[in-house]
Amino acid sequence: MTKKINVAILGASGYTGAELVRLLLPHPYVNLSVLTGDSQAGKEMADIYPHLRFSGLPKLLSLEQVDFTVVDLVFCCLPHGTTQLVIAGLPKHVKVIDLSADFRLVDPEAYAKWYGHAHQAVELQKEAVYGLTELARPQVKNARLVANPGCYPTSASMPLAPLLKARAIDATGIIIDAKSGITGAGRSAKQATLFSEVNDGISAYGIASHRHAPEIEQTLADASGEQLTVTFTPHLMPMNRGILSTIYVGLAGKNTVADLRAILEKAYHDEPFVHVLPEGVMPSTHQVRGTNDCVMNVFADRAKGRAIIVSVIDNLVKGASGQAVQNMNVMYGWPETTGLQLTAIFP
Amino acid sequence: MTKKINVAILGASGYTGAELVRLLLPHPYVNLSVLTGDSQAGKEMADIYPHLRFSGLPKLLSLEQVDFTVVDLVFCCLPHGTTQLVIAGLPKHVKVIDLSADFRLVDPEAYAKWYGHAHQAVELQKEAVYGLTELARPQVKNARLVANPGCYPTSASMPLAPLLKARAIDATGIIIDAKSGITGAGRSAKQATLFSEVNDGISAYGIASHRHAPEIEQTLADASGEQLTVTFTPHLMPMNRGILSTIYVGLAGKNTVADLRAILEKAYHDEPFVHVLPEGVMPSTHQVRGTNDCVMNVFADRAKGRAIIVSVIDNLVKGASGQAVQNMNVMYGWPETTGLQLTAIFP
Amino acid sequence: MTKKINVAILGASGYTGAELVRLLLPHPYVNLSVLTGDSQAGKEMADIYPHLRFSGLPKLLSLEQVDFTVVDLVFCCLPHGTTQLVIAGLPKHVKVIDLSADFRLVDPEAYAKWYGHAHQAVELQKEAVYGLTELARPQVKNARLVANPGCYPTSASMPLAPLLKARAIDATGIIIDAKSGITGAGRSAKQATLFSEVNDGISAYGIASHRHAPEIEQTLADASGEQLTVTFTPHLMPMNRGILSTIYVGLAGKNTVADLRAILEKAYHDEPFVHVLPEGVMPSTHQVRGTNDCVMNVFADRAKGRAIIVSVIDNLVKGASGQAVQNMNVMYGWPETTGLQLTAIFP
Amino acid sequence: MTKKINVAILGASGYTGAELVRLLLPHPYVNLSVLTGDSQAGKEMADIYPHLRFSGLPKLLSLEQVDFTVVDLVFCCLPHGTTQLVIAGLPKHVKVIDLSADFRLVDPEAYAKWYGHAHQAVELQKEAVYGLTELARPQVKNARLVANPGCYPTSASMPLAPLLKARAIDATGIIIDAKSGITGAGRSAKQATLFSEVNDGISAYGIASHRHAPEIEQTLADASGEQLTVTFTPHLMPMNRGILSTIYVGLAGKNTVADLRAILEKAYHDEPFVHVLPEGVMPSTHQVRGTNDCVMNVFADRAKGRAIIVSVIDNLVKGASGQAVQNMNVMYGWPETTGLQLTAIFP
Repeated sequence: MTKKINVAILGASGYTGAELVRLLLPHPYVNLSVLTGDSQAGKEMADIYPHLRFSGLPKLLSLEQVDFTVVDLVFCCLPHGTTQLVIAGLPKHVKVIDLSADFRLVDPEAYAKWYGHAHQAVELQKEAVYGLTELARPQVKNARLVANPGCYPTSASMPLAPLLKARAIDATGIIIDAKSGITGAGRSAKQATLFSEVNDGISAYGIASHRHAPEIEQTLADASGEQLTVTFTPHLMPMNRGILSTIYVGLAGKNTVADLRAILEKAYHDEPFVHVLPEGVMPSTHQVRGTNDCVMNVFADRAKGRAIIVSVIDNLVKGASGQAVQNMNVMYGWPETTGLQLTAIFP
Repeated sequence: MTKKINVAILGASGYTGAELVRLLLPHPYVNLSVLTGDSQAGKEMADIYPHLRFSGLPKLLSLEQVDFTVVDLVFCCLPHGTTQLVIAGLPKHVKVIDLSADFRLVDPEAYAKWYGHAHQAVELQKEAVYGLTELARPQVKNARLVANPGCYPTSASMPLAPLLKARAIDATGIIIDAKSGITGAGRSAKQATLFSEVNDGISAYGIASHRHAPEIEQTLADASGEQLTVTFTPHLMPMNRGILSTIYVGLAGKNTVADLRAILEKAYHDEPFVHVLPEGVMPSTHQVRGTNDCVMNVFADRAKGRAIIVSVIDNLVKGASGQAVQNMNVMYGWPETTGLQLTAIFP
Repeated sequence: MTKKINVAILGASGYTGAELVRLLLPHPYVNLSVLTGDSQAGKEMADIYPHLRFSGLPKLLSLEQVDFTVVDLVFCCLPHGTTQLVIAGLPKHVKVIDLSADFRLVDPEAYAKWYGHAHQAVELQKEAVYGLTELARPQVKNARLVANPGCYPTSASMPLAPLLKARAIDATGIIIDAKSGITGAGRSAKQATLFSEVNDGISAYGIASHRHAPEIEQTLADASGEQLTVTFTPHLMPMNRGILSTIYVGLAGKNTVADLRAILEKAYHDEPFVHVLPEGVMPSTHQVRGTNDCVMNVFADRAKGRAIIVSVIDNLVKGASGQAVQNMNVMYGWPETTGLQLTAIFP
Repeated sequence: MTKKINVAILGASGYTGAELVRLLLPHPYVNLSVLTGDSQAGKEMADIYPHLRFSGLPKLLSLEQVDFTVVDLVFCCLPHGTTQLVIAGLPKHVKVIDLSADFRLVDPEAYAKWYGHAHQAVELQKEAVYGLTELARPQVKNARLVANPGCYPTSASMPLAPLLKARAIDATGIIIDAKSGITGAGRSAKQATLFSEVNDGISAYGIASHRHAPEIEQTLADASGEQLTVTFTPHLMPMNRGILSTIYVGLAGKNTVADLRAILEKAYHDEPFVHVLPEGVMPSTHQVRGTNDCVMNVFADRAKGRAIIVSVIDNLVKGASGQAVQNMNVMYGWPETTGLQLTAIFP
């Protein structure tokens, strides 16, 4: 019988923290021992998330109140910037899966450029593994500190990395047009994400300036073996969960859309969470709501030598908390689907 | 080790059928052996519900193609009227949980009045047990044919039945103002439930004429021991899942709101799916999305001697397929929460 | 030719302020001379409301920057509490239509009880006219200070006041179950009205404690000639605009539903903004989106001697800014529909 | 004083027909004389669109019942295919603005290829003018038959045509990623556009096969003077009205994003309905809801030599019925904004 580990969720009062609770509650190898939420310390989780009305959940603590000597693994859901300081201060026996952006960019100069200040835990950065699980399983297995990928990068890199690795598509000129649900903006009160501001409309944001662009480029450069620049446009639309990325690529050499499909099918044939749909079937975010799945398909473009890829995930699951649990399963050698065998909620 | 039973879902192409598939896939004691969908016979479930992309699901059959000799239990998700004929034709060794309205009304005359034609399986009607599980557990346990309750009746009767049984509220003058998500209207193409017709607005429908009214009255008459008439107004609003019933009642005798709360807390203290919230906390359909839970609370009215009860369920789960699975668990003596230990999807 | 008046909107940065701009821009007798927004002073309206990209709109000022000597009429969209001080400080030649709650309750003790502090402009209160236009046209015509009604009270009092005046329904036991869009909660950033918190669900709030209850009771007491207590439950649901009130009443004496219909049809026969629908037709908030209309209907209840009334308005128009413009038209003797001949936006 | 013309709306029971009614009711030069709706003939408009509860609207007729001798202009909102036969049968004194796709493609072979059957009114096709008003005002002025543009083509061609005409962007490699509200799919009952199927999610459709692609290409070929192929991907998302097109282009020669902005600002400087936003400001469909406006902006891409254009319209107004009214105004020499001076409904 597998021994349970003691898990802490730092920053449990945000959406990714609450989603981790949902996923970990039935996980057979996890004790949810510690939940922190500085501004909510002392409260029950049910006070701030009435849908989590379970006996047995510990009260929210402040960070200082945590006794990390009895914690085996930390999920860190804190804001970027402060995250690196918190993690640097943890005892070294604690494994860490960080859902912030702090350890995603390998190059500290890239971090400084995109986040506006020098990285304050550069040594830790060297140790961190970028945890897009399917692409980095061996490294994740041996990691102490996993940088859990961003939601947009997950949706875009999953189909693009195998195609670039196989040199089936051009590394230049990749265009990613992504549409996201509103939970990606978090639970903090902001005018821009009020219901009345968002409902019944759509807008682009962060055009050519979103911090997920360098994260995508880092993964794709690894896959293709060359530096590249992607065009990335995120949009905010009225749905709770989900990202749909429509990706425009050039076919390299004599590759066809059928070749692209074959490459993706082979790459993900044995992956439990990645599904390449049959020819002509459209991915939809409805198909992955509440699950850790990434569903994708490839389509011929009318423009010669070009293809269109559509990829969908649930931004809170495969795009955040679900992939974090997946990474934990890999780190501990448990079946990777433990706690993640979920059927989409539809409608 | 418990032996698995073979289960058939008749009418698997509707929303309640698809929801049964979601709930039964991980159920440890169930083989999903047969799925029927007459107009879709020959198709894979994934063709009509892309989110159900699982290996192992059988193809959709027409009703005539089913070999019922190897089926242990049938979930019947067919339209009312035809349902009674189909069920009358099943072999007697097959247990049946019927999600239609056909066997809910005990009185065939009431059926004829509200459904516009004589009941065509009156003998079966006598055998049927109305399966609001918490109120009829012993009868469900021994039933061969369970009439699974309607969604509105479930949301309203759960809080009202114990209060009437305790004579804590007046049997006359009960008003139920219910707000439902759109899945309650099913998956058939209808102009009235198009996105553009429903989005960003609300309307009442079926005022004083909805067929769930006599179903509610039957349950409440049983509880109170006297005939009664309820005022019931359903509303259609832009959400997928959920029913919130706001119920206005008179306090009987010297009963107080605190008495009502105490009665409900006692009635449901050991029930895994029913939650009476702490004083002052508001139920919301968000709290039960995707779960088999019924969450309720009682509030003092400013009008003297009156109380306001709010009750929420997910209409597709506790209001349909989840309660059906719960009834199956009772019928077979399995732990009642088997397959139903679900955390709400929020946001 | 009618001379134009100079109008100021105090607090133009909120939703009711922006809606006044939408309605007043094409108004033939109005110069939009002054817009204030303290925290936004110095900005263009287009900076905070990109849909108001019109030349000719003045910049936002702080309150102190306004020269009221050239202002004829003020629409006051400030928070309650501070409103009474601001209005008390205005020169007496300025007419005022106040959209806050500050001058709605005639009784200063009721104000103190419901708003938690003594009224600070009691003398002005005596002068204020409660401006539910159809019920108080002569008083509004001669008023200098109009207290514009709240959104819920407008939707509820419009059908109830004529029925109570005619003694056709019981003054006791009136139950108002109201469902509102989210704009009623304003544009301030609050966690509770974030898209992800509100979308795809419904909840009740302020049960038996909402400040619009005494406002409704004041109007209905006027109509019926006796003190009364209403049961009022507001709900928050995912739509931008709209209130639907479902109202449960007892028929007084030998009155029938047909009598109620006849009373309402007679009361509102010549009213351009009030529509009693034909028998059996359901009001829906979709029917009034963007308009100053109140649409209503009466239905027989199955419970003997009772009726159900459904009434819908757009909370930002008839429930706020539209009724304010209507009151202005009355105060100046202009045709009452000036600027308000709007067709609903559907879908 | 301008004499009013008699207008007929053929196919008034669909969304574009109802929107024409909304826009034409206050139009000072139009009598709404005839409304047809074959399957609804004999009904009042208010029976099928309760928000159009106006006296004075004529009953719905069947097509055969119409006396066209007294009709000056027809708005044709019939399905494609049948439209060409109906229009061919109209008396020649009747001006026609056709909202279907039947007369949009100049080349009958292109029509046959994309619509699956030979065009049956080829002579009329020669006479038809493609009515993207701002690009074809002189031709529209003298036309008897105007082919009103599709919604997607309007949103895409408005920014692209002037840029191609100025040779500021590459004619090859244009990518249009468009997101549409659900009203674009019409009012017919279809499973795919039910609320429960659409709500809280997004999907692409018609990838590389949507019929609006050749329509866009025709306009852009005219502007650039060369044949071209565009990449066009439409998406369906949960909103009623609106199209947002995100367009990816290569800068031609030494052109900069500033040059593109200057070209668009010059092209649309005097246009009442087209707005180029200030640098950095994001277009949103919220900004145009209910209006005839097209709002656009240009952004630098991080990929060298490339730009990103975002353009928004209301698909039912500038994308259909509003542009039809605009074309009518041009045909009759009335001020082009007559009946179209609308402020967006926000929120």
